[in-house]
Amino acid sequence: MSHLITRWRVRCQRPVAYDIVCTRDLFDPQNPALLSAGRVEGGRRFVVVDSNVDQHRGEEIRAYFAHHGITARIVTFPGGEENKTLRMYLSLLGELDAFPIHRRDEPIIAVGGGVLTDVVGFVASSYRRGVPHIKVPTTLMGYVDASVGVKASINFNGSKNRLGSFEAPQRVFLDKTFLKTLPHRHILNGVCEIIKLAIIKDAELFDQLEQHGVECIAARFQNFEGGGILERAITGMLEELESNLFEENLARKVDFGHTFSYGLETSPDAGLLHGEAVLLDMLVSCLIANQRRLLSEREVERIFGLIERLGIAINPRVLDAELLWQSLLERVEHRNGLQRVPLPESLGNCVFLNDIRRQEIESCIRSLNDRVGKENEAKLEC
Amino acid sequence: MSHLITRWRVRCQRPVAYDIVCTRDLFDPQNPALLSAGRVEGGRRFVVVDSNVDQHRGEEIRAYFAHHGITARIVTFPGGEENKTLRMYLSLLGELDAFPIHRRDEPIIAVGGGVLTDVVGFVASSYRRGVPHIKVPTTLMGYVDASVGVKASINFNGSKNRLGSFEAPQRVFLDKTFLKTLPHRHILNGVCEIIKLAIIKDAELFDQLEQHGVECIAARFQNFEGGGILERAITGMLEELESNLFEENLARKVDFGHTFSYGLETSPDAGLLHGEAVLLDMLVSCLIANQRRLLSEREVERIFGLIERLGIAINPRVLDAELLWQSLLERVEHRNGLQRVPLPESLGNCVFLNDIRRQEIESCIRSLNDRVGKENEAKLEC
Repeated sequence: MSHLITRWRVRCQRPVAYDIVCTRDLFDPQNPALLSAGRVEGGRRFVVVDSNVDQHRGEEIRAYFAHHGITARIVTFPGGEENKTLRMYLSLLGELDAFPIHRRDEPIIAVGGGVLTDVVGFVASSYRRGVPHIKVPTTLMGYVDASVGVKASINFNGSKNRLGSFEAPQRVFLDKTFLKTLPHRHILNGVCEIIKLAIIKDAELFDQLEQHGVECIAARFQNFEGGGILERAITGMLEELESNLFEENLARKVDFGHTFSYGLETSPDAGLLHGEAVLLDMLVSCLIANQRRLLSEREVERIFGLIERLGIAINPRVLDAELLWQSLLERVEHRNGLQRVPLPESLGNCVFLNDIRRQEIESCIRSLNDRVGKENEAKLEC
Repeated sequence: MSHLITRWRVRCQRPVAYDIVCTRDLFDPQNPALLSAGRVEGGRRFVVVDSNVDQHRGEEIRAYFAHHGITARIVTFPGGEENKTLRMYLSLLGELDAFPIHRRDEPIIAVGGGVLTDVVGFVASSYRRGVPHIKVPTTLMGYVDASVGVKASINFNGSKNRLGSFEAPQRVFLDKTFLKTLPHRHILNGVCEIIKLAIIKDAELFDQLEQHGVECIAARFQNFEGGGILERAITGMLEELESNLFEENLARKVDFGHTFSYGLETSPDAGLLHGEAVLLDMLVSCLIANQRRLLSEREVERIFGLIERLGIAINPRVLDAELLWQSLLERVEHRNGLQRVPLPESLGNCVFLNDIRRQEIESCIRSLNDRVGKENEAKLEC
């Protein structure tokens, strides 16, 4: 008997793979897409559906599973940031645990916006150390952003997304027909994330938004150009995500607009949707970029012009320098000791800054207030 | 503008790598091992220490961090299955969130038994979607089993390990000196997992236990042969884990003893430690294997003989056929629709069964009661 080992090394590669599939009328009984993953015969599905979607489509969803002989437990979930809570997460886990599913071939199905798919993703990742889940985004924010990646989370202790995991879905189904009944404010909410990608990495997408954005918003992206813009946004998003799915690299282009917004969103008084907070962050960031001569005055004008043309209201009154500064300091912890703030260097390109000062934030908030005229403020009051 | 994409595929390999490092006197200020991972200058560490370990070694641990100028937040944690709770998990997350750490270079440190490292692993995996953690097992169960793998978990809704994740540690430090003060019952608890590996995959390890087990237990594995047995057990464990770290394959040799034990452990009346429940499961399983002519009568005798020689008490009174049957049914959900029960086929080899009947369990419980004589029962009452 000898014992000379002083060290073992454990090494492996965990394969991650999932498909994002475009489909139409996902809950049409003739559409086999949703049941293409997992056990059908004798199968069970735990399905979490956004309460608003349930009102419009609940009957159709129930009929779909009944038609295919699937025992489905449909649980409704109220959307909105205020429901991205520990309480909601635990309540879903309790319901899931009372409804037995196989560990591998009865995927949980999440049908809703970004908050819902984030929470359900974390539920799926925690239950039995991970059961598969399928995401069906029903909002534009979910469609172009939350559903296509692997981030799952809940808010905790007053902080956004403080708990969560990287949990790849088994599949994502994109069905544009859900956007038909989406309220206008939520269409604009998703558009803000498309604008983000355009400014930070895709000048051509910016052009398309300038040319077709207005009609796409009016058509809730059901039109031909809307399809093209969504496709380009998702392709761009995935370019950034796929090579850095688990955020080994903490300098991420897609974090543009996600530094100061962090604090804005958790400020209960502001009442902002995610995209609205991201937009305010982007505008402050663009003004910082302008002061640093990364972005020309003309480019800044184009950005403000696009936002006005698309009819997106800006409410700079919620911007407080201290709140934004604290938010940046928090992001420094999250980004492991450096600011790593992505800023546009001319439209469509990105640099990372580590030396933003509080004074700069203050002066850019003032400058934003100056730019946004009375007209916009009046718009807000309607 | 064209849009013809109907499907995107996201693919990557997530690399997993960690070292399990043997060391001595980990908290000796001259031992640099523990701070070899993460930021030292200006560094912070969130350290969770088992309450018993804190009594013996708390001063030494605090002095270690102070010596190196590390701001350490030491939180104590009471060991034991009854503390593997949601409440404990959330309380640790709250404490962690109040003590800021960088996301990547200030690893959480877990110093304790299997329950503690399991809970802290889940805390680390959930916080900010994952921050690094280091495991320092202080029990034999932790040393040969819980700490060397990637499973993290808490109990939930009355079910063992119902929530959790696969979270690789950044590093594991094995320091045998912690075992010097471990109570005898907890030494035997860990020995049960070593016996498991011996029966299901390593006949040579079984021989070693027969030859040296008694002296190793007396020496709390501080002796030469003890080192050899621990090394062999860990090597064997890692052989099984490394190739199947995320349990893609649900038929796992290391699940031997972990089918019926599942229900036994969560039965509050039984009051069993993990290894004690695993032992009872193994004995029932060996008797099933014997009835099916997988294991000879002589081999069964050797197994019972080893357990008696090592002074491990068997209490078959807690075995209830219904409880064991329900536990098996639960494992069927967990193992995705099949029993996949590992049984020994002669000492040191493994087969998987999918057709165990309730009747077999009943008859093997009776047989176990018959085998375990009055002598053992008397032993229990001391």
